[in-house]
Amino acid sequence: MLSVVVEHIFLLVLVTLISVLQNAFFATKVEREGKEHHANTSAFERVSCANRNCMDSYPTFLAVLWCAGLCLNQAPAAFSGLIYLVARQKYFVGYMGQTSQSTPGYVFGKRVLSFLFLMCIVGIFNLLLVRYFGNDFKDTVETITTAASALLLIP
Amino acid sequence: MLSVVVEHIFLLVLVTLISVLQNAFFATKVEREGKEHHANTSAFERVSCANRNCMDSYPTFLAVLWCAGLCLNQAPAAFSGLIYLVARQKYFVGYMGQTSQSTPGYVFGKRVLSFLFLMCIVGIFNLLLVRYFGNDFKDTVETITTAASALLLIP
Amino acid sequence: MLSVVVEHIFLLVLVTLISVLQNAFFATKVEREGKEHHANTSAFERVSCANRNCMDSYPTFLAVLWCAGLCLNQAPAAFSGLIYLVARQKYFVGYMGQTSQSTPGYVFGKRVLSFLFLMCIVGIFNLLLVRYFGNDFKDTVETITTAASALLLIP
Repeated sequence: MLSVVVEHIFLLVLVTLISVLQNAFFATKVEREGKEHHANTSAFERVSCANRNCMDSYPTFLAVLWCAGLCLNQAPAAFSGLIYLVARQKYFVGYMGQTSQSTPGYVFGKRVLSFLFLMCIVGIFNLLLVRYFGNDFKDTVETITTAASALLLIP
Repeated sequence: MLSVVVEHIFLLVLVTLISVLQNAFFATKVEREGKEHHANTSAFERVSCANRNCMDSYPTFLAVLWCAGLCLNQAPAAFSGLIYLVARQKYFVGYMGQTSQSTPGYVFGKRVLSFLFLMCIVGIFNLLLVRYFGNDFKDTVETITTAASALLLIP
Repeated sequence: MLSVVVEHIFLLVLVTLISVLQNAFFATKVEREGKEHHANTSAFERVSCANRNCMDSYPTFLAVLWCAGLCLNQAPAAFSGLIYLVARQKYFVGYMGQTSQSTPGYVFGKRVLSFLFLMCIVGIFNLLLVRYFGNDFKDTVETITTAASALLLIP
């Protein structure tokens, strides 16, 4: 019975796994920097700060990703998730750059998160419409969101 | 098929979305404070500390909220979740207050989290009872928890 | 209908609840240390650092645990989760030890997390095999993973 559910979420699981790999990459960077430089230098502080900022927003990202995937459709949600992971990688690498360079801010990937957030809202709104009016716009909405997720690629 | 599942979780999704909005509010506060005061003043440290404490307990909150909602019933779980979010807002605002004022401690929302925790335990216990003895107390238990969740409003 | 789903995840919920209890234990340790020593001493910093490292990897752990449990089987996933919690407890206690002693590194429980990660990959691979070739290796794979999870006990 559960395998029917897994059909509907396996893309989300894949994106989650990739994000876990990325977390492991961040953590090993922090550990290596901490061992080499004895936890006091500016390089360690930068890497540690980048890792902490990434980890702070990680549960939020997971929550929105899974809600959007469950409420509407997994394909556009997983695609947006991938774009978020790319943005996070860029953010982390930007922190590790030259010290003279100004560091990126605290918040990143705002556009992707708002898109996933909108997907959740639309999904729940659609559910309520179906319940009380009987019109199922899900197919239309899914097509539109799948097309709209491609717009996230525009820098 | 998934829409049947979504019926049972859409209140949880709504509470999760509200918590995401709150996280975004906290993050923008931190970012603005960091930009204005160049990341060294006491005001930035206070906001950053408040945000970090909130983020530290966020995954725990999400885990208990969803477990309680899945195991027993979504309505009381979502209601308790809302109360937790109000407590968190108060906690954050308390941190941002005057510097002379003593800051609130590290832990907050203990009562709500314990209530959600109890809901999970009762839900699993009920499941095991149904499996091995065939008595279904779920309806009774759901009524009691829905009533009990109103008790959380007492300060 | 949801109770059929809950059958398949109640062990995961149990492990999640235990991890929540452990988080609460960590948080009270931090709070007590912060109150007693006025947030400046080395003991507070050690406990706070240990708690932060544990919290940093907590969402990652939850994500892998639930993905592995949903994609393959809950029993080995829950068992590995328990072992991870024991490793985390040891890590936290190691941090709280004597100051002269060297602290453990940033990353811990690598073996358990990689095992859960592998379980997810195998589960998704199996799903795709079933979809396109029609062979269901799930029973075989579940038996192997249940046996393999016992290997995690070897120190």
